[in-house]
Amino acid sequence: MISFDKKSWVASAQGSIFPIQNLPYGIFSTAQKTPRIGVAIGDKILDLYELALHQLIDLNPEIANQNSINSFMALGKEKTNAIRLQIASLLEMGNDLLTNHSNKADFFVEMDQAKLHLPIKIGDYTDFYSSRQHATNVGIMFRDPANALLPNWLHIPVGYHGRASSIVVSGTPFHRPKGQIKPVESEPPIYSESKRMDFELEVGFVVGQATELGQTVSTKDAEKYIFGLFLFNDLSARDIQQWEYVPLGPFLGKNFASVASPWVVPIEALDAFRVAGEDQNPKVLPYLEFEGAKNYNIELEVAIAPENQEETVICRSNFKYMYWNMCQQLAHHTVNGCNLNVGDVMASGTISGPEPHEFGSMLELAWKGTKPIQLKDGTERVFLKDNDTCIMRGFAKKDGVTIGFGDCTTKVLPAKS
Amino acid sequence: MISFDKKSWVASAQGSIFPIQNLPYGIFSTAQKTPRIGVAIGDKILDLYELALHQLIDLNPEIANQNSINSFMALGKEKTNAIRLQIASLLEMGNDLLTNHSNKADFFVEMDQAKLHLPIKIGDYTDFYSSRQHATNVGIMFRDPANALLPNWLHIPVGYHGRASSIVVSGTPFHRPKGQIKPVESEPPIYSESKRMDFELEVGFVVGQATELGQTVSTKDAEKYIFGLFLFNDLSARDIQQWEYVPLGPFLGKNFASVASPWVVPIEALDAFRVAGEDQNPKVLPYLEFEGAKNYNIELEVAIAPENQEETVICRSNFKYMYWNMCQQLAHHTVNGCNLNVGDVMASGTISGPEPHEFGSMLELAWKGTKPIQLKDGTERVFLKDNDTCIMRGFAKKDGVTIGFGDCTTKVLPAKS
Repeated sequence: MISFDKKSWVASAQGSIFPIQNLPYGIFSTAQKTPRIGVAIGDKILDLYELALHQLIDLNPEIANQNSINSFMALGKEKTNAIRLQIASLLEMGNDLLTNHSNKADFFVEMDQAKLHLPIKIGDYTDFYSSRQHATNVGIMFRDPANALLPNWLHIPVGYHGRASSIVVSGTPFHRPKGQIKPVESEPPIYSESKRMDFELEVGFVVGQATELGQTVSTKDAEKYIFGLFLFNDLSARDIQQWEYVPLGPFLGKNFASVASPWVVPIEALDAFRVAGEDQNPKVLPYLEFEGAKNYNIELEVAIAPENQEETVICRSNFKYMYWNMCQQLAHHTVNGCNLNVGDVMASGTISGPEPHEFGSMLELAWKGTKPIQLKDGTERVFLKDNDTCIMRGFAKKDGVTIGFGDCTTKVLPAKS
Repeated sequence: MISFDKKSWVASAQGSIFPIQNLPYGIFSTAQKTPRIGVAIGDKILDLYELALHQLIDLNPEIANQNSINSFMALGKEKTNAIRLQIASLLEMGNDLLTNHSNKADFFVEMDQAKLHLPIKIGDYTDFYSSRQHATNVGIMFRDPANALLPNWLHIPVGYHGRASSIVVSGTPFHRPKGQIKPVESEPPIYSESKRMDFELEVGFVVGQATELGQTVSTKDAEKYIFGLFLFNDLSARDIQQWEYVPLGPFLGKNFASVASPWVVPIEALDAFRVAGEDQNPKVLPYLEFEGAKNYNIELEVAIAPENQEETVICRSNFKYMYWNMCQQLAHHTVNGCNLNVGDVMASGTISGPEPHEFGSMLELAWKGTKPIQLKDGTERVFLKDNDTCIMRGFAKKDGVTIGFGDCTTKVLPAKS
């Protein structure tokens, strides 16, 4: 952990979402620089390739000169955490190594001059369903209000495999998907664009260490496999999903696009924000038991901005509301020997808090279309409209320090004709 | 298509499952040769890297000198089909270019001296559920015999995302998985090894051409995206699956291991085996309509060999029994704009024919444990036992020519303690 009383000589870092305590990793490029690993600090990006070339950090430059952070993660935590501390030292108030360096112009780019790319070459992507409020809300709306949670939900961190190919970086728009929907129960399905386009507010983590087929990971060891976290919008076409998902789960209702925020926040940067999760009752099976605080107090929000209009924040939730924590998810995922690769992504599932304004999807916020959401421009929404932009943000705040994630943004383009 | 009257000067090719009409691609290595692309012919493997090095085929040697066929597939069908014809020409009776070549010792290895590797670097893996008999059998056993097929089944080629990381090549054993099962309905789940270990007889195909996010592929164009086919064992721990799968689909019941046969048979090699599928009624939506014969007459069988015992063939099915064909699967998968990468794999789902001996899983063959299967050694099975080997085979036969796939084999090792 980088002590909360440290400050950076990069002036914009103070009070920003990228202070010296954060140092998230991303992939950036500029007109002059091919895609490579950068670290966000204030309103700038530190170029790890240039630092490595000039031997200012203990890293093979070729590992930084790649279009994903996978090879960097694969170095292992001992190595990457040592580099993290070297970077913090270079940026710390009083250290003038970079500012006095003859190549100082090469080390930083302005964030608003850089293009950010998807930082991870994703292997397999798994989506969990770990917010009790979300699972309860869905159960009330679509199944039995008296038995909203399915029988397995309190025993298993329920999850399923999602599509990796269509995960895009923040800022990438997508076309409203088409497919089969069944708007009238008594009539056959029709081919149509989705009329129930939704977001799902999630937090994802990336696996930084591989396992062999047959190997299990305990809840105790799980954090060693978690390199870092990011925001994740699991876009969902509710009408496509509803008609297709029984019995094998969501497919085309989800796999047209999912959106990841551009910076991977190392789990070490979030250590000060640990909190206890909800008590788990019934008692979980021993392989899911854990010790210590494994939830994280990360404030989350979702805003909708209609075309050329001011945004309206329509949801404020928190990552602390997870019933099943990341260590339990990872232990469950490997209990049968399923192997992990560096770059695998696991997402939380929609994170809904107990209050109606904390629900993490429009399905829940507008309660299946029955409670329209008011926007500042005077319009209403029950689902996303064409040309709406959806913005997710995340902040962990403590003692005047904010660890931010950077926006996770996407825009709904009209369906292709 | 390579004409059925052609013969190879490789004597073992005649009458084998790898005649000159097949020429499937795989990745092999030997004590002397690092993993590279090979083509099966009779009991030998033709080394494409050596052929390319000596300019006997029109291929950059570095593309053949890789541990997957992905870069080769990515060359596109025009190029790879031209190379296929060059290879056929080199192997055809009367062509003595290879036998007279000064480097002839480098071009072939004996198949039984080579190690075969997983030929594809798999991106995303999707499993369909496209055999009507299988879906009906499962519906009768677990849901409502009077309404065995779910309402969406005749409208949608139902599919879901599976785990790519744990797909292994034929010959790789796996440990019986552990996890949560719920053997007594009225009692809480327990942590246990799976007691209902099953195979699923499937055929997979690999995508050889990428699409962009937002792009759709029509049924008419779909075959251009299908590079080749292989056998696929979608191993299933039925008890883990049954407890976990509602509402998001199978997860740990499947992702501990799946097994692929080592040779990718080009779809062009199967052209002579096209047959019409079952009439689709109700009529499908226009994006799923197709013209021509899109099913394939490929005989399939599954054998079980207990430890040190002779095998017993317990299932004889056929790929022609698919209700939804591969072109429909691919068109459906992309109807919402989901993008494809070279190396993506799609599997058929369990292929069950109408007769009880044609059912493609032990769940169905032994009808949920009620009809034990007799093996030649006098023992019975309702599910796989530890140390059982499961062997899948596939053959397309016509006019004295057999296009084979090579065995898809795996062994159930005892659960890890």
